[in-house]
Amino acid sequence: MKSMDKIVSLCKRRGYLFQSSEIYGGIQGFWDYGPLGVELKRNLKDAWWHDMIGGHNELIQPQTAPSTFEMVGLDSTIIMHPQVWKCSGHYDLFHDHMVDCRESKKRYRFDQIRGRWVEYQDKKVFVTTLAEAEQELDEVRRRGMKFFKLRNKDADKIAVGNESLTLDKLDSTVDVLAPDAKSLDTLTEPREFNLMFKTTLGALGGADDTTFLRPETAQGIFVNFKNVLDSSRISLPFGIGQVGKSFRNEITPRNFTFRSREFEQMEIEFFCHPDQSQEWYRYWRDRRLEWYKSLGLSDESLIMREHHQEELAHYSVGTADIEYAFPFLPEGEYGELEGIAHRGDFDLRSHMEGKLDPSTRPMQVELGEDGKPKYRGSGRDLTYRDEATNEKFVPHVVEPSAGADRAVLAFLCEAFTEDEAPDENGKLQSRTVMKLHPRLAPIKAAVFPLVKKDGMPEVAHEIYGELKRHMNVFYDEKGAVGRRYRRQDEAGTPYCITVDTETLTDKTVTIRDRDTLEQSRVKIDDVVAELQSRINA
Amino acid sequence: MKSMDKIVSLCKRRGYLFQSSEIYGGIQGFWDYGPLGVELKRNLKDAWWHDMIGGHNELIQPQTAPSTFEMVGLDSTIIMHPQVWKCSGHYDLFHDHMVDCRESKKRYRFDQIRGRWVEYQDKKVFVTTLAEAEQELDEVRRRGMKFFKLRNKDADKIAVGNESLTLDKLDSTVDVLAPDAKSLDTLTEPREFNLMFKTTLGALGGADDTTFLRPETAQGIFVNFKNVLDSSRISLPFGIGQVGKSFRNEITPRNFTFRSREFEQMEIEFFCHPDQSQEWYRYWRDRRLEWYKSLGLSDESLIMREHHQEELAHYSVGTADIEYAFPFLPEGEYGELEGIAHRGDFDLRSHMEGKLDPSTRPMQVELGEDGKPKYRGSGRDLTYRDEATNEKFVPHVVEPSAGADRAVLAFLCEAFTEDEAPDENGKLQSRTVMKLHPRLAPIKAAVFPLVKKDGMPEVAHEIYGELKRHMNVFYDEKGAVGRRYRRQDEAGTPYCITVDTETLTDKTVTIRDRDTLEQSRVKIDDVVAELQSRINA
Repeated sequence: MKSMDKIVSLCKRRGYLFQSSEIYGGIQGFWDYGPLGVELKRNLKDAWWHDMIGGHNELIQPQTAPSTFEMVGLDSTIIMHPQVWKCSGHYDLFHDHMVDCRESKKRYRFDQIRGRWVEYQDKKVFVTTLAEAEQELDEVRRRGMKFFKLRNKDADKIAVGNESLTLDKLDSTVDVLAPDAKSLDTLTEPREFNLMFKTTLGALGGADDTTFLRPETAQGIFVNFKNVLDSSRISLPFGIGQVGKSFRNEITPRNFTFRSREFEQMEIEFFCHPDQSQEWYRYWRDRRLEWYKSLGLSDESLIMREHHQEELAHYSVGTADIEYAFPFLPEGEYGELEGIAHRGDFDLRSHMEGKLDPSTRPMQVELGEDGKPKYRGSGRDLTYRDEATNEKFVPHVVEPSAGADRAVLAFLCEAFTEDEAPDENGKLQSRTVMKLHPRLAPIKAAVFPLVKKDGMPEVAHEIYGELKRHMNVFYDEKGAVGRRYRRQDEAGTPYCITVDTETLTDKTVTIRDRDTLEQSRVKIDDVVAELQSRINA
Repeated sequence: MKSMDKIVSLCKRRGYLFQSSEIYGGIQGFWDYGPLGVELKRNLKDAWWHDMIGGHNELIQPQTAPSTFEMVGLDSTIIMHPQVWKCSGHYDLFHDHMVDCRESKKRYRFDQIRGRWVEYQDKKVFVTTLAEAEQELDEVRRRGMKFFKLRNKDADKIAVGNESLTLDKLDSTVDVLAPDAKSLDTLTEPREFNLMFKTTLGALGGADDTTFLRPETAQGIFVNFKNVLDSSRISLPFGIGQVGKSFRNEITPRNFTFRSREFEQMEIEFFCHPDQSQEWYRYWRDRRLEWYKSLGLSDESLIMREHHQEELAHYSVGTADIEYAFPFLPEGEYGELEGIAHRGDFDLRSHMEGKLDPSTRPMQVELGEDGKPKYRGSGRDLTYRDEATNEKFVPHVVEPSAGADRAVLAFLCEAFTEDEAPDENGKLQSRTVMKLHPRLAPIKAAVFPLVKKDGMPEVAHEIYGELKRHMNVFYDEKGAVGRRYRRQDEAGTPYCITVDTETLTDKTVTIRDRDTLEQSRVKIDDVVAELQSRINA
């Protein structure tokens, strides 16, 4: 298992990641990208944009695609009209349950209190809901394990289990112990807490002026569906991609950048005919998994988790999470990198309600106290008319939704390696190396003169200048060349180019490979092309 | 004068810009970038990043630079610790003055009420402050013009002038007429309104949890100054650049995307020795102006406006605005694209107060009611120690601060051209063409088969596929080739590549230049290199 502490420490020391507002004691759930981090994240987002949007060739697709398709980009605002969030359902439904501890005065997310073992009077106590406890007990019985749980007074409140008790005591009653409390039963009932950050538009500050920072970029795409259709002469199937910040007021941000309050998403909404949406769902699920592998995440660290039928929303035929074995998780557990969801026609329909074509089925609308729909859509027609068949319908949507910060974190964790490499005298020394994919590496190459004399710096300057026109490179002439290699290893630089005495006679340099440590001699004139071909290999 | 209405209309029709949340009636001051717009804005931001940060060669600089220097990037969060804004001065000082009209119930920015001519009882009435009126009168006297103004009851309240009155009536008293009011004197006294969007962190919602969306990216750089210094082994002089969203709760957003509430900045904070800061100020001012010209803004549309000595903050030796003649402004007026400010050591010092080295001069701190400094800095040492001289000092800062959305708007306005081009029969037809610089153009080239037969589409597919690996290109086979050219002209595509009958025999294609309309034949194998060299020319 890789050490998360070492990774976090390297990230700060080398300028990948800093805690936001650190000089003021920091701010929980916010992280800044330093000079190396910003280049890494830019490379990741650019790779996504190129591979999914800008470099997409709509005339040929991977053989697995059901048909040819187009992809375009969009960049919508973080603050949108508040009605967007009422019609999307976020205003009513996008919340966590939180509980307060009367003793410690701390606040917890309910789903973080449950599912945890806590110490209580020399016993280990497991916190869970009744329903979960029942389910777990079934599993215990099935496996023939000894497992113990206790029923709480109220069903579906918080129940606890104690491993020192026996099964026949199942129906006894025990109260819950909060993480930092000494007495029992100090937690309040779970309450709803909306995760959207609120703000107020304009100077009047009335209730109508309250709006929200977007909790996802997706809705900016749905509300622009018709604008894109009308301005781009595009036809189904097609996808709209967007990269941008989103905000969620997490009650307990944690695990470095994994659960942050401000984060960046890379989302695609793929619009298609309802009859083909299941095929497209499978296509995107598989294609997105391959993308992470193509940039260096290992097979063993990745899983595709299909949601169970009962986990799915009523409108969805499938949702899958691409998950990564982050080192901060227990062995065998995975954290979500990206969700690929079949969303049916739910989103477009939510934004059009009020002017539905009779040929389309009515949407399910929550009713207000007056019996009228609580939040009506825009009243705009967001249906699509197929020019060939003249069929009119609300397209189905497949949504591959990736977290850019989580992906950066996964690539950093995957890259972090402690191994041994020979020093100048051929003696093995331990080294820390960030084995980042060359496309992602913040610095593509470093250029060193072996020594600071005999004209070597001048030659190195020229190579550096030529490379700088094409890629981000670094020049270093300070200290022993072995130490310069090590510094670049930590920065994840895949190639080091050294100008030595031979260079002065035969106009070749050595290129040292970060991972294999192999050194090959290349003509100065061929260095740019050689690096470009290795990076894009 | 170019028509702003036509530019706005083209932007929507072709998918450059949409009003945010348009299907819900829109939201004032927020704009979304459509498929063409997002590519244009990405290209602009990438050009800035490449030219200023990633492609900067610290071993050679433009000859005008006072010395060699390094540049690195950063990406800090939008939401920061609230103390950042208290110490930076934004909490107390970043406000506009607003006035309410008791009759129309409308709210205005004071600086938009003043300086305007309004109609009142068949007379033209000019609204201004007394001080401004005095200044203007001096100008009028100097030029020997007839000009008339009237003193209001209170000095420095709102004064009005009336051009039908004579100079001797200067001391009469007249009340102001609000823009949409019928009776006089309906405006309230100007009141302060802080422009930062407020929001609340976490679920408790106490006063301590109130924070703000950043109104500028700059402070994220200042609070990370030490982090960057410690992690990057960098030495003075150097710059830290950042691209990202900022938010200002403008009372009256207007002029398309020019004054938006959510906008993107491209900011550099350049740190240097105090003795050299004036030289660096001049360097950056000139270099940034050249940058806009290098991407196609014309000499005639750009001005560099040096602030007068009395406009400057006490810590600054100079501030200059790069301004553009936007078509929505009256002839001869310009709107700000970028400000280049000499900020002395004000910002770093504001964030360090509490642990000042005795050798540095004390900062000016506003005192609270208890006589103690109102907002103390972090107490961290943000001084710099020069390794060669061992001198310790607070670096001076030069800040070139550009607005990405304003730059996009300027490039769109500059590019918008109505001219004539011959159709297939050689007859001149009017056309609309977006003459965007090839580096900025959303689509670099379009590939057309002349007709949809004889194998032309297949050859065009191959060229398209090869180009797609290197740049954003478009394929079109629908309709007459003349109409396809016109569509690309509106999209700003600099080159159109046509596969025709000759192609099938000699393996050449025509490349048509958007601006000169010249067509040249190029070998298929040379198309990629030819376009790359034209784009980066």
